[in-house]
Amino acid sequence: MTKKAEVAKFRGIKAEIRILGLDDGKFVPRSRSMVDIIGVVFRGGHWLEGVLRTEVQVDGLDATEKITDMVVKSSHYDQLRVLMLNGITFGGFNVVNIKELNKATRLSVIALTKEKPDLTNIKAALTKLPNWELRWRAIEDAGPILSVITKADAEPIGVQIAGILEDDAKKIVKMTCTHGSIPEPVRVAHIIAQAVSRSKTSL
Amino acid sequence: MTKKAEVAKFRGIKAEIRILGLDDGKFVPRSRSMVDIIGVVFRGGHWLEGVLRTEVQVDGLDATEKITDMVVKSSHYDQLRVLMLNGITFGGFNVVNIKELNKATRLSVIALTKEKPDLTNIKAALTKLPNWELRWRAIEDAGPILSVITKADAEPIGVQIAGILEDDAKKIVKMTCTHGSIPEPVRVAHIIAQAVSRSKTSL
Repeated sequence: MTKKAEVAKFRGIKAEIRILGLDDGKFVPRSRSMVDIIGVVFRGGHWLEGVLRTEVQVDGLDATEKITDMVVKSSHYDQLRVLMLNGITFGGFNVVNIKELNKATRLSVIALTKEKPDLTNIKAALTKLPNWELRWRAIEDAGPILSVITKADAEPIGVQIAGILEDDAKKIVKMTCTHGSIPEPVRVAHIIAQAVSRSKTSL
Repeated sequence: MTKKAEVAKFRGIKAEIRILGLDDGKFVPRSRSMVDIIGVVFRGGHWLEGVLRTEVQVDGLDATEKITDMVVKSSHYDQLRVLMLNGITFGGFNVVNIKELNKATRLSVIALTKEKPDLTNIKAALTKLPNWELRWRAIEDAGPILSVITKADAEPIGVQIAGILEDDAKKIVKMTCTHGSIPEPVRVAHIIAQAVSRSKTSL
């Protein structure tokens, strides 16, 4: 199987491993305008080393490609080991195919997800959009949702993974929850994306 | 003297004191377009808690007012204690009057500066701009440049201050140099501002 060969094995995870946390900014639902995607290069759960930015279309089909482009063209690319996404849908229903993202970037992908997404509702919404089968395939390709207990007193986090072993992904998620119950690279990407995104109501 | 009453005294500086680090983004010199100002709410030299954004005009006169507005309208305002600026000029020669910024926000201001700015050249450039006396007054109001040794092996940092005692300012600058030779709130504000600013060549 080719799949096995793509799975990175981490021999001991360094506390300062470079992770790119990703989240989208504010947008007007169904507007077909562009939405900011912010990538934050983090050293483990500790400090910020860089920030990347791209744009994808609300409800578009370009998220996987645009994120791949942003990552591989970045000066940080050679040092990065993991992409950590806040969900697999950005800008509404622009679904990231994490399997393809893993293949195209050759980096391990961890997507934080709700533990029990409402797939019936999601499918109903998708079928109203063009190329809905492509979007649905990306959701199926994301695979099973693993549950990670990050802190004794916090709700478990759901994660979907590509190109990384379950145990390694769980260790990285736990290790990076430095200041809260979600991993630091995604927590910070979220704050920055919300603050810097501008409302854009047309293309 | 009223000045003395405005100087905050810190009875022991908490490692998690809330500081807003500020820097400007990329811009086209002399374009008269708008440039992003990014404010980063940091807990001491440790972690990011929030991000603010505003815009000022390249070579304009609105930096002091726009930054004041951004700060006092923010949900973080009540918790903030210190504003830490990357220099006193943003977007070219839009000079921040740190004395006025201190009065208007009631927060201590620390501006990182070159140790020996070339005031002759700066004045020559300013006199080509409208209201140059106002800009020059802001530069004079920033007061003497204090030298802070942050790390044994690093160049000293110059700082100008308003509404804070010299010793407190020096302690805060040293304490926040967590990941490098400049204070973390400004280091991170700089990275974010550079990454998220867009070229805008006209108003």
